Amino acid sequence: MIVIGERINGMFTDIGNAIRDKDTKPVIEMAEKQIKHGADVLDINVGTRVPKEERKDVMVWLVNTVREVTDMTLSIDNPALSTMTAGIEAATKKGTAIINSTTGHEEKLPKFMKLAKEFDAGIIGLAIDENGVASTTDAKLEIAVRIIGCAMENEIEMDKIYLDPIILPVKADQAAPSIVIETIHQFKMLSDPSPHIVVGLSNLSQGATERPLINRTFITMAIGAGLDASIHDPLDTALMNEMITAEMLLNKTIYSDAYIKAYFQSK
Amino acid sequence: MIVIGERINGMFTDIGNAIRDKDTKPVIEMAEKQIKHGADVLDINVGTRVPKEERKDVMVWLVNTVREVTDMTLSIDNPALSTMTAGIEAATKKGTAIINSTTGHEEKLPKFMKLAKEFDAGIIGLAIDENGVASTTDAKLEIAVRIIGCAMENEIEMDKIYLDPIILPVKADQAAPSIVIETIHQFKMLSDPSPHIVVGLSNLSQGATERPLINRTFITMAIGAGLDASIHDPLDTALMNEMITAEMLLNKTIYSDAYIKAYFQSK
Repeated sequence: MIVIGERINGMFTDIGNAIRDKDTKPVIEMAEKQIKHGADVLDINVGTRVPKEERKDVMVWLVNTVREVTDMTLSIDNPALSTMTAGIEAATKKGTAIINSTTGHEEKLPKFMKLAKEFDAGIIGLAIDENGVASTTDAKLEIAVRIIGCAMENEIEMDKIYLDPIILPVKADQAAPSIVIETIHQFKMLSDPSPHIVVGLSNLSQGATERPLINRTFITMAIGAGLDASIHDPLDTALMNEMITAEMLLNKTIYSDAYIKAYFQSK
Repeated sequence: MIVIGERINGMFTDIGNAIRDKDTKPVIEMAEKQIKHGADVLDINVGTRVPKEERKDVMVWLVNTVREVTDMTLSIDNPALSTMTAGIEAATKKGTAIINSTTGHEEKLPKFMKLAKEFDAGIIGLAIDENGVASTTDAKLEIAVRIIGCAMENEIEMDKIYLDPIILPVKADQAAPSIVIETIHQFKMLSDPSPHIVVGLSNLSQGATERPLINRTFITMAIGAGLDASIHDPLDTALMNEMITAEMLLNKTIYSDAYIKAYFQSK
């Protein structure tokens, strides 16, 4: 699994305050803490509290701050091309980056894919298009095919593509999670080699009372269906242990009595 | 999910001692405890410490003891036809029963299936035949087809059939769990309506250090693949909560903020 740590996000109070105060310490600490807990990639999101015109500068500041302590892949999380470009430029000065994200919009997709090509970056493609979030497996597949087609036109390797079927809160739409599980199965068969499949896990449990339980149950079923990347909180140890166990049970990592410890030592 | 509580088994010290002392109290208490924790069926197993010639009588004693407090479906767990027949006869005097189990052996299968028909009992069919435990998905499917064929010949409805792909300890064969997950997918498509699919969960984690974590991670993936019955310990609350969450996420039960509480109240 590729664990994309979600905690450097201006929506969280600690990071929001750090952005406001231009205080690098909480950002650096959160980067280090997530790495220690098993993150493979760090997501960088300025959040929505930063005024639009400042987002580009804040993104670059966040990226440069994290780059002080790690050359790990950074996932630049923003919908605007200008902020994305600035973030990807800054992140790839030392290390690699992932564009998080593009949609299947005809207007947006080619521009973001071109950026991925230019900086040899990964790119997350969401199952969203002109009609909003695709709600059926067929509609999600149609957008995925469009994203893969655009990647091929730009000669981007499948290993750089992360398809995101989009998880909605189970509380809002209880039919959606099982559609996502089925979609993951289908995404896995779209091409050989297959693209990565990623979810933004926390969205699933928005507003629910049993958030950690719901998150770790879903990711386990999704891994069983073929999920190989996830944006979530690596500090959630119960979730991480279950994810590690799921991969071990699928024979992707080697069993030993200390397989959980071994997982972290192999990082 | 159909939860088959595994705790009335002579292999456990408390039940083993109760059998030795002909003490009904621990057996009754364990029956009631499992029911309270969400068991839908109670497995009854005399264990291997009882001498062969006494097993039939012990089975009848265990069944009659449990029948003092519940008319819940009982799963009669024994490989011998004579002990099975005695257990099924006793159990179906008040309530229904499940034969646990037959294999696909040409010698054994028709006899056990006939017994199921005679007592209108469910029957668990293991992916085992003359060659031992089937290790590939294809071999497991072949035995499953044989079991379903025999059920049809005996005019037994699909709802009475429980296919068990057989889980081996992950510590002994790390390739086996993912084969079981794939097999569950395939079993689900064998007929319409499909038979039940059941696993003897605890076997998976035999000898492992992280037994509860391994058990609940596997069952969650298996439910995602189509599992709808499991023989396990309902007193493992973490496992039960995750199982309940998996079913809720697959839209099989209704979400509410108190969905776990609601699950137990609906029993």
